[in-house]
Amino acid sequence: MLENFIAGIKPLDEAAMKAAQARLDSLIKPPGSLGEMENIAARLAGISGQVYNDISKRCVIIFASDNGVVDEGVSAAPQAVTYVQTMNFMRGITGVAVLAKQFNTDLIVVDVGVNAEITEDSTVIQHKKIRKGTWNIAKQPAMTREEAVQTLAVGVEAVEDAVKKGHKLIGIGEMGIGNTTTSSAVLSALTGLSPAQTTGKGAGLSEESYCNKVNVIQTALKCNNPDPSDPIDILAKVGGFDLAAMAGAYIGAAKCQVPVVIDGFISIVAALCAARLCPPVKEYMFASHASFEQGYRYAAEALGVTPYLHFGMRLGEGSGCPLMFAMMDAACAILRDMGTFEEGNIDDEYLEEVRDADFHIRGL
Amino acid sequence: MLENFIAGIKPLDEAAMKAAQARLDSLIKPPGSLGEMENIAARLAGISGQVYNDISKRCVIIFASDNGVVDEGVSAAPQAVTYVQTMNFMRGITGVAVLAKQFNTDLIVVDVGVNAEITEDSTVIQHKKIRKGTWNIAKQPAMTREEAVQTLAVGVEAVEDAVKKGHKLIGIGEMGIGNTTTSSAVLSALTGLSPAQTTGKGAGLSEESYCNKVNVIQTALKCNNPDPSDPIDILAKVGGFDLAAMAGAYIGAAKCQVPVVIDGFISIVAALCAARLCPPVKEYMFASHASFEQGYRYAAEALGVTPYLHFGMRLGEGSGCPLMFAMMDAACAILRDMGTFEEGNIDDEYLEEVRDADFHIRGL
Repeated sequence: MLENFIAGIKPLDEAAMKAAQARLDSLIKPPGSLGEMENIAARLAGISGQVYNDISKRCVIIFASDNGVVDEGVSAAPQAVTYVQTMNFMRGITGVAVLAKQFNTDLIVVDVGVNAEITEDSTVIQHKKIRKGTWNIAKQPAMTREEAVQTLAVGVEAVEDAVKKGHKLIGIGEMGIGNTTTSSAVLSALTGLSPAQTTGKGAGLSEESYCNKVNVIQTALKCNNPDPSDPIDILAKVGGFDLAAMAGAYIGAAKCQVPVVIDGFISIVAALCAARLCPPVKEYMFASHASFEQGYRYAAEALGVTPYLHFGMRLGEGSGCPLMFAMMDAACAILRDMGTFEEGNIDDEYLEEVRDADFHIRGL
Repeated sequence: MLENFIAGIKPLDEAAMKAAQARLDSLIKPPGSLGEMENIAARLAGISGQVYNDISKRCVIIFASDNGVVDEGVSAAPQAVTYVQTMNFMRGITGVAVLAKQFNTDLIVVDVGVNAEITEDSTVIQHKKIRKGTWNIAKQPAMTREEAVQTLAVGVEAVEDAVKKGHKLIGIGEMGIGNTTTSSAVLSALTGLSPAQTTGKGAGLSEESYCNKVNVIQTALKCNNPDPSDPIDILAKVGGFDLAAMAGAYIGAAKCQVPVVIDGFISIVAALCAARLCPPVKEYMFASHASFEQGYRYAAEALGVTPYLHFGMRLGEGSGCPLMFAMMDAACAILRDMGTFEEGNIDDEYLEEVRDADFHIRGL
């Protein structure tokens, strides 16, 4: 299945990108002076195959699930918060929900493994629970390989479904107490970096709890011994349902030829898994903000992306995505609405005329 | 006059900031996890004296003027571009105009010294021309001290006028061919940094033209010998009408108790002048993006601000301000719309209930 998805991913449309760049170069500004805004606009063209892109219908997809490793005391928050916040997404009162509303973004919550019965019938939530939380990675694999593949497919399908409903831009978020621990474990497994490098204080750990968290990750890596060259093995052994589904979602976005925005630490670790599984997926990804969480920059380096927004945020949930959507709106507006040199009367003949009529008449 | 303005500037309202911080700490997120978003929301409260702030009516004020130093060949663009772009602002086709429209921002253009007759009657443009361009700073002062003070007052009044019209948030932009040269000269005079450090390639200089630009700035500083402790002397001798008016605008914003957003290199040099003239003004300022122009980071360090947006932009015009306005909208939405721990059912008793009902039922 996964091989089929991966084989179906198209490279960016070079002709559309060139046409977008030609348009950008014709606009009344020094060439390249809008920096990454121009690159974003051009890449959006490469993704859709269209010079002009309407990304006004977009969503953040939040993959919610629990992590057995919380039994090791790695999180400052109790596990029940995963369930409670999943309900709060539907109520529109979490950080990402508020930011999504602010920037005309729909919210989709996919329960891939919350450790509670969630039966609400809502347009916001999708019931795709694999199991009520992963097993404790400090003692055994998080899930079977079959479950990991099944979870990746849930992520792919969530994006396919969103795209079918008309979404032209996707952000990838998560909710899962304990998932900075699994993310650090996955990042260490993928990169060979030590857990002390990839591990941060999550949502507010003490120094002592931080050391415990690093030790738990070391134990998890030792006990499960994931294969560094096999992202599915890594996700199954030291990852989580959220991470695996998110990795699938990135692949799904590339398959559907829609741009996809990375949020913070957990989101970028999933993006790195997706890019390792299928390198062309990277061309569809856009970083958003530089998470304050320690491992973020290592993941960004490993993935080869540079974040645009620097607010020291570390909330997760996908909260950085709507902010980036607004910036991508700006990139589209620049390409679409700025005047050309011709429209703006910036041509040598006209400028000469202006000069002769009125210039050089100043003086002391 | 200036002394009166400066004496009238109030420190931030500590009680309102504390109340805003208390609200932020009550919201369903780990404390501080929205980073600078929280600090922005709290500072907006300190500025207005209100916990909740509506910044939906806002503007970018563009100060347009010409610089005599273009006679030295310091700019890649001909001087007539200042006039043509000033007209293009009114037509809504420049970079800042497009971004302003995207983010519900009005544009106000103040002609403080464009080297052309501008007589258009438009709600967008204000006719406050001091003179048709400054004198050539490589040979003499840009303006008299009296003109510098008069220009500062134009900036103060432009903001007072905007605030009277209901604008609750101001961005400071500019248009003036040659003004990266004057900005580098002013920055060197203010900080003692060498022109080679403060000078960049502006809107696209060759290596040769860049060296000429550095030499011109050195000559300007030597010939005019501005007093490093006297920002008005510096603005008069090696600045420009745009820079002086912008410095005044920052002071005006503080006087009117409205937040004010810094754009790129020229905008931040003017902000540094304002802060040197009147240190409390700094509390009203918000950086936006990190300009690609070389001197920006020195000016940001000297001013003690950190930019949030990293797009490698170097267009000027105030183009970074509407982007930051959108981020400030986000900060206000967070404070206003997120649920509290109580509203979000994140209290120990409820979490215990969730746990007992449903947790720890997983297992291999």
